[in-house]
Parts: sequence; structure tokens; C-alpha cells
Amino acid sequence: MQPSNEPTLSIFALGGVQEIGKNMYVIQYGNDIVVVDCGSKFPDESLLGIDLIVPDITYLLDNRDHIRGMIVTHGHEDHIGGIPYILKQLNIPIYASRLTLGLIEGKLREHGLLGSTKRIPVDSKSSVKLGSIIVSFFKTNHSIPDCLGVVFDTPEGRVVHTGDFKFDLTPVNQQYADLHKMAEIGQSGVLALLSESTNAERPGFTPSERLVGESIEEAFFKARQKIFIATFASNVHRLQQVIDATHKTNRRLVLLGRSMINVVTIAAELGYLNVPDGILIEPGDTHRYASHQIAVLCTGSQGEPMAALSRLSRSDYRQLSVEAGDTVILSATPIPGNERNVSRIVDHLYQLGAKVIYGSGSVTGMHVSGHASQEELKLMLTLMKPRYFIPIHGEYRMLYLHGQLAEQVGVEPANIFLVGNGDVVEFSAGSARKAGKFPAGSTLVDGLGIGDVGNIVLRDRKLLSEDGLLIVVVTLSKHDGAVLSGPDLISRGFVYVRESEGLLEEAGRIAVSTLNQMKGEQAGQWNAMKTGIKDAIGKFLYAQTKRRPMILPIIMEV
Amino acid sequence: MQPSNEPTLSIFALGGVQEIGKNMYVIQYGNDIVVVDCGSKFPDESLLGIDLIVPDITYLLDNRDHIRGMIVTHGHEDHIGGIPYILKQLNIPIYASRLTLGLIEGKLREHGLLGSTKRIPVDSKSSVKLGSIIVSFFKTNHSIPDCLGVVFDTPEGRVVHTGDFKFDLTPVNQQYADLHKMAEIGQSGVLALLSESTNAERPGFTPSERLVGESIEEAFFKARQKIFIATFASNVHRLQQVIDATHKTNRRLVLLGRSMINVVTIAAELGYLNVPDGILIEPGDTHRYASHQIAVLCTGSQGEPMAALSRLSRSDYRQLSVEAGDTVILSATPIPGNERNVSRIVDHLYQLGAKVIYGSGSVTGMHVSGHASQEELKLMLTLMKPRYFIPIHGEYRMLYLHGQLAEQVGVEPANIFLVGNGDVVEFSAGSARKAGKFPAGSTLVDGLGIGDVGNIVLRDRKLLSEDGLLIVVVTLSKHDGAVLSGPDLISRGFVYVRESEGLLEEAGRIAVSTLNQMKGEQAGQWNAMKTGIKDAIGKFLYAQTKRRPMILPIIMEV
Repeated sequence: MQPSNEPTLSIFALGGVQEIGKNMYVIQYGNDIVVVDCGSKFPDESLLGIDLIVPDITYLLDNRDHIRGMIVTHGHEDHIGGIPYILKQLNIPIYASRLTLGLIEGKLREHGLLGSTKRIPVDSKSSVKLGSIIVSFFKTNHSIPDCLGVVFDTPEGRVVHTGDFKFDLTPVNQQYADLHKMAEIGQSGVLALLSESTNAERPGFTPSERLVGESIEEAFFKARQKIFIATFASNVHRLQQVIDATHKTNRRLVLLGRSMINVVTIAAELGYLNVPDGILIEPGDTHRYASHQIAVLCTGSQGEPMAALSRLSRSDYRQLSVEAGDTVILSATPIPGNERNVSRIVDHLYQLGAKVIYGSGSVTGMHVSGHASQEELKLMLTLMKPRYFIPIHGEYRMLYLHGQLAEQVGVEPANIFLVGNGDVVEFSAGSARKAGKFPAGSTLVDGLGIGDVGNIVLRDRKLLSEDGLLIVVVTLSKHDGAVLSGPDLISRGFVYVRESEGLLEEAGRIAVSTLNQMKGEQAGQWNAMKTGIKDAIGKFLYAQTKRRPMILPIIMEV
Repeated sequence: MQPSNEPTLSIFALGGVQEIGKNMYVIQYGNDIVVVDCGSKFPDESLLGIDLIVPDITYLLDNRDHIRGMIVTHGHEDHIGGIPYILKQLNIPIYASRLTLGLIEGKLREHGLLGSTKRIPVDSKSSVKLGSIIVSFFKTNHSIPDCLGVVFDTPEGRVVHTGDFKFDLTPVNQQYADLHKMAEIGQSGVLALLSESTNAERPGFTPSERLVGESIEEAFFKARQKIFIATFASNVHRLQQVIDATHKTNRRLVLLGRSMINVVTIAAELGYLNVPDGILIEPGDTHRYASHQIAVLCTGSQGEPMAALSRLSRSDYRQLSVEAGDTVILSATPIPGNERNVSRIVDHLYQLGAKVIYGSGSVTGMHVSGHASQEELKLMLTLMKPRYFIPIHGEYRMLYLHGQLAEQVGVEPANIFLVGNGDVVEFSAGSARKAGKFPAGSTLVDGLGIGDVGNIVLRDRKLLSEDGLLIVVVTLSKHDGAVLSGPDLISRGFVYVRESEGLLEEAGRIAVSTLNQMKGEQAGQWNAMKTGIKDAIGKFLYAQTKRRPMILPIIMEV
């Protein structure tokens, strides 16, 4: 499965295909490895207690001497969130645009990695030689500024990775995408295109971010009192439009939420955000202004329980609160899985008497996606005219539908590769084939542990979470195996002891009689005794309660 | 808070307001109590291990002698799911339409309650005297047949409870709603209306179920091979349309899923479903037909992991499988919270090569809601012309928006009551007021236990699910408190022992040194010793791992 001695070009994902999140792609020519992105994703409800998921980088650790660098396309968590965890094991230089680097540096600082990591700013005019691979860039539009698509010129041919993108022909702050450069790249020949598939299920053309600005401005003019608006902190263009609406309606702006303050600071410093002098005020200063002079920009648009919007809905800030007649805007569409938390907040805001603008952005006008819909995906494919196509950044159905779009615009069906993480597509002599699989998967982060929580630990957490635990402590005599003390029963998460004394007493009697039965034949066979107790008590408790707590017998001999 | 001796009319919810699910309403005049519905709901992810939630019926148990009967509006789980749990504590006669009774009887049989429960079939022509309250009915449209709205004529005035409804002017099987009767009821004067609020956020008029039939028929005609369609088993009209499309395209129909077979059997027996002779075949008989002669109607449209569609997506049936080129229709819109499970199934179906029709019913044409949208809610309010209005059956924002609709069609704002479960609205001498609160809330069902799992047990399950458990077993000498054996450390769901020997050894040493320090001053003070061990080990483990397992010290003295 290793590339042969005759150098070939290999492309594979270490994360990001057949899933949403933890994007990480590898472009390898011969012994030169270039990594694209290193994202994280949040665990689903089955991964109890896990904080974060990052890519499994076994392949990179095994080939550490060949890694020439990591290109980062933009500053979203699903593209940068894994970087500090990976850099703890692997020191790689990072190439990214200025804003992206600014956001990465915040993470590196937190993890004490800033000093040891080489960081190289690039832009759409840069060209970087990484071994035999020459890397250049083109600007795209997305829901964060300073996004780059990446061109890899290899001896085998040209590979293009779009990063995340949409086509926004009226972008905020005149941040135009390099449409003509994309056309030129395509015209001069693309061997393989890797293009993102997030919105491959969505027909049409994603609306311009500017439309959201118009809706926001209208709401700001209409509101007679305070106006609160929650959105993704990283959506700097959205923040700009909120700042503009605040300015136009002669309001002052309060920032709430750590990441909001953080991003506004970085983006303003780097020149990505234009903040009029004196417009920002502290929460403690709001009492100096009339309610119609105040706007609040905050985190928590996805219903995150610890974020600012949720705290506002619980009246949890001392100096600032949502009052009857205030307007609250959720400038985001709830991501599947977050609806319940968002709905709970909306309910609380209504109970406070607020006017709430919420729900799908396509209905409220308060949100547009940052990802290309079907017509834009076809536009990218048409511009790039790739011989081979690998849809990336999406679950299977999205990759599949993106593949169908590619067929529609003329890519040969046999030249479309639907891959899973680790699946290698190998190019040599101008043609491509699937060539085995490298290790790829999830590395679970739990507290300070990276990858140390495995299936057994998760299985136990699952068992414990469902029916709790019953510990049975017995002391036996060394001489004859007689029960000297106990059984003492300790229940956690199973039943509340005071209400279930009878049940636990009976379980104790069953433990004793099990031990007595085994005394003759199996004395001293600890495992057999423990299994005997587990089985007997387990059967009894299931019959009585239809629950299956984890049963832990602890047998002491004295 | 008890109704005074001068009889008054009280209306309150024991479930169903400021939540979705477990509907239960009480209409009480003097000492005559009539209950409407007794639903269940599923726990959210915070209620670990809980199987089901049913209403807290403390009030009914305290007033059991005054209960005259329970009216059940229709056969959905959020209206009937709690009945067996409540009937175990309270024997009440049940009044419902034939299909609703059929579905309830299935539950009673399972719980051994069929013999002991009085069941009285009613229809839109019935009139029932329950103490001083005369109860009559009107037919409505919904996503299950045989739905009833309920009229309560009390000495204080007329109360109307809509049940769940939509206005479907072209209903399947000519099951027309009693539109003229509703007009008549309204014309003769309604004191208070309780109307359902599920779709109060949705503008417009919910489309007719018949449109779905047209989409299904079209898909059946188009499909060249087998066609699979998943939907809610209880949606008998939908099942009828699938049967009709099967018949028209000369296919045979396989039923998959226990509840699908169950509902088809009951509905066909009672005459609510017209099943042509010979159209149903067993999965084992499909090999006798060509693939274009086969249709499969199955459960699992919400992505339930154990239901038929999920099993099909895993190729889990021996005699029947989804093959490349087959068509699969998800005739349902995913309920918030179910998207991930549904998406996973769609991904698997695409991987099998199927054509999949999925997503929002408003886009695919394969699903319509069973609940009234804003225009229909206004139509109901206009027909009923109530003096007082209590929006029911919805979360707070839905009740709030429904209240706004009522204002728009002329209900006095002061006469609109937004209530929580237990909040009593009392009517006397023609006017209404909020009058205190009765106990109301959630009763948690876990296995056979009804209401025996409380906050402490749930808190422990939560702790155990996040970071697991560490048991520290030590044996001390009775004489001098010296450590005789141990500490033995048992870890479950915390760390995998083999990979963390050093960590656990150090934790053991900390336990011993903690005990030694305490030996002098606090010997024999078990709680102090246990707390000391917990604190010392907890602090150590958090510093090392940023995790907080539950620590259970077990100290034996010999």
C-alpha cells in the first residue's frame, strides 16, 4: 500500500469524507507529503463524556520525515480545531492566510505551542515549493473571510482543493473571489478536483451574504428598544453588517461572549473588520443610553447552554437583560441536533416579552449558508474542468449527489471517486485508480487524554448511564469460605436506596446463598464466584425492575 | 386552591402545555371531573436510561372519587401512551371512537388491564352524561382516522376541546370533518375553547393528505424495480394511499415492522382500511414475483434504529433486501432530533445503490402535516367564537403565537390564558381567572418502575456517563487503623486499566497516605475518611486527566 519507488501521486482523506467535520486531506507525490487542514468535530450522543474528535494521524506519524507542511484553507473549527492536538505529536510548518493564522495562533497560545510552531502567512498571490509540489492559492467566498482554494502542481499533474466556498457576487467588504483566476486554472488543465459537498443536497444558488445585511438593517430601524442579535462569532462579514446597522441607527454595540470578543478583536486588528470609533461599549455602560440606542451582538445562536444568548434568556447577566418589547434576532439556522436547545431559548425569550425573530434563515432573511448550492457546485466543476473528481467534505449522500452533479456537467462517471477516510486514490501515467486504504478514523479527546478512551470505556459509560451500578461487598473467611461480613450493597444511578430497601436486601440474600452454594466446589475461584453473584443478582433485578445495572461484586478474604 | 362549595368550572392541563407530548387535560365542574387524553412522551437526552414520560396524576389520585371518565380524542401515543400506567393506579371508564379504542385495547392487553377497564365507544353523534357535564363530539381531520373534537356542556357554559386537527377539504376515504356542526357549536355560544397549537408557527394552510397520494402514485408508476415506502404506522390514510398505489401498479405489498402489521390488521378489521384481496404477501414470497411487482410498506421513517427501514438499510432481512436500482421513499419529515438517524439510513441506502426520496415533505411531496397551520387555527377560532381561549398542545412559543392569532380574529387579549401544566383557569358567573396551581409534572418510567427514578439517581447516571467510576477498596485493622490490604482500584468507564497502571497506582498511594494522615485524629470516622480519600484522589485525577470520575471508597475493618 506504500507508494512504490516509481513516484506516484496519492490523494486521500484522514477526515472529512462520509462525515461532517474534522477535515484533513493529504496530497502526496513520491516522498513529499502536504497536509490540508486539521479539523475537529463534536461527538454525537453515543460518545459519552468525550469532548472532541480529531483525526487519527497514524499515517502521518509513520511518515513524519516526509511531511513538508500543512496548508490551512480557512479558520473554521472543522478545519483548524484539531491542530493543537496534532502538533503535540508532530511539528509541522503551517501555511495559511493572515486571519486564519490569527485564529490558529489563539489556539496554539492556549496549548503552549506558539513558540515551537513555524507559521507562514500566504495569500492568493503566494507560491510555495514543498518538496516536489508547488502550492498556490485562489480566493473564495465563505462565511469567514480570507478563505483560500489551493492548487497543487505536481510532476503528475495539477490538483485543486476548493476549501469551503460559495459564489457571492456581491460580497461584504468587497472581498471578491478570484473568479478569473479559477477560470485560468481550469483552462490550463486540472488533473483532479477536490470540491466541498456540504450543500450538494440543496438546489439553486446560495443567496449573497449582503441580503442578510438588508434584513438586519431593516430590523434595526424597526426596533423601538434594545436589539439583540446572536450569530456565529467567526462570521466576520455578518459581524460587519451588524456593526454597520448599529452605526446607521445611531446605536452603541455591546459584545457578549468570549469568542465574539475574541474574533472582533483579532479581525479588527488585522483589518478585516471596520469598527467605527466609540461604537463599542461595555455591558456596564448601557445604563447611560436610552434603550433604542443599544444593540447587543452575542454568541449562542445554536442554543449552546453556556453561551451568551442562553444566559440572556435566563436573565443571567447583572448589567444587561432582555426586557419586554426588546427585539431578539437569531441570525443562524439551527444545525440538526440543536433545534431543541434553540427552541428552549426562544420560549424563554417570549416569556420575557421579547419579539423574537427565529427559525430557518431562508424564512427570516436573517441567515444564508456559507456553502455552495448545486448550481454553484456545477459552476466550480465547469470552471475547473477536472479529468478526475473527488467530492469531499460531506456525508455519503452529499458526496454521491455531488458526484451526480459532476456527471451532469461532463465528468466521466468512471473518473468520479467516492471515497471514505483513508481510501487512497493513486495517479500515475495520467490515470487514476483506488489503491488500498491507510489507517484513518477518530481520535477521541477526553479532558487531557488524546486517544486513551476506547470502546471498553465507552461501553461501560453507556451501561452506567442507562441503569446505573450496584456494588456488592462481601468478606469471606480464608479458612472455610464462610461469609464474615456483608453483603453491603451500594447503589448509584440504579435505584434510590431509601425507596428500595426490600429489593436490595433480597439481592443481598441472593448473593449469600449463591456464595454458599459454591462454597464446596469452587471455593477460592474468585472469578467464578463473582460471575455467579452477577448472574444471580442480575436475573433477580431484571425480573423485578426490567433494568440491568452494572453489578460489581467485591469479595475480600480475611 | 380546591374549588369552593359554590360549584365552579375549572380547566387545567396535567400535561401537554409548554411541552410537546403527554397530553392530559381536566375539565371539572364542582365535584365532577372529566379527563381528556393521557399521553406519553419520549425523554430527552438528559434523562439517562428513562424509557418513557407520563403525566404526574397526583391530583387525580387525591380526587379519585370524583372522576367520571376519560375521553380520548384519538389514537396517537401523545394522547394514549400514558393510559396503561395511569390505569394501574386508577380505574376510569374510557370513552373513545372505535379505532381509538382498538389501539388503546392493544395496550391494555399488553399490560393485563383489558378485563378490568370499562371501554365505551362513542362517535360524533354520541352524547354522554358524566355527572353534571354533558359530553358530545365532532369529527375532525388529522393524520389518523376517527379523531374527535369534544364539547363539554356544563352549568357554567360550554367548553370545546379541539383534539388534534387540520382542515382537509379533500380527505382520503371521504372522512369529512363536521364543519357545519362546528359552525353550529360556535353559533350557539362557546365559553372557552382549548385548541391545539402544534403548527402555530407555520403560516398558511396545511396541504391535503390527498396530495401525498398523488406523489406516491407517481413514484410507484415511475419505479422500474422494487419500491419501499416508510411512514408512520398510525397514519391509516397514508397506508390506504400506499395500498391504492400498489393496486394501481399491479404490485403486491409486503408489510414490515410490528406496529405496521398491527395497525393494518386493526384498521382493516374495523373497516378503516380497504385492502384488496390477495394484495398482501409475506417477505418469504417475494421471490415469486418480478421486482417491479413488489412494494414494501414499512416502519422506521424517523430513523428508529430497531425499526424496519433501518434494518433494510443494514441488509438485515434474510428474505428481502434493497438492491441497486430500487426506490426508497421516506414518507415523513424528520422530527427535530431525529435528523442524524434518518441521514445515516439515507447514506446506507445510497451505498446500496437505491434511489432515495427523502427530506422535508414540503419539498418531496411525500408528506404533509396532520396539524392545522395558522389559517386553519384562525378558521377554528372564527367558527367557535369563544369568549375565552386557552391554547394547548405546544411549547411556549407555539401557545404564544396561537394566542396572537386569537387576538387577530377578535378574542379579547385579556381573555386569552397562556398556562403551564397544573395552572388552573376557574370560571364562575361567566368570567374567568387564573386560580392557583395543582401538582403537575413528569412521571418517569424506567423498566417496570413508574416514578421511582428521581433526581439523585439521574444525577448519578449523568456523572457516571461522563467520566465513569473509580472504586477504592481498603481493609483497615480494627486495632490501630493500619492498612491491612489494598487499596485495590477498580475503574469502569474512566480509563482503561492496562493503559493507565501508573495513574491508578499513584491514586492508590494517595489513598494510603490520606488514611495514614487521618489515623490519629479521625480513626473510625468513616465518613471523614471516605471524604478525605475522595477529595485527595479527585484532585489528583483532575490535575492529571481533567476528568472527574465518581470516586467510591469502600473501607472494611477487620
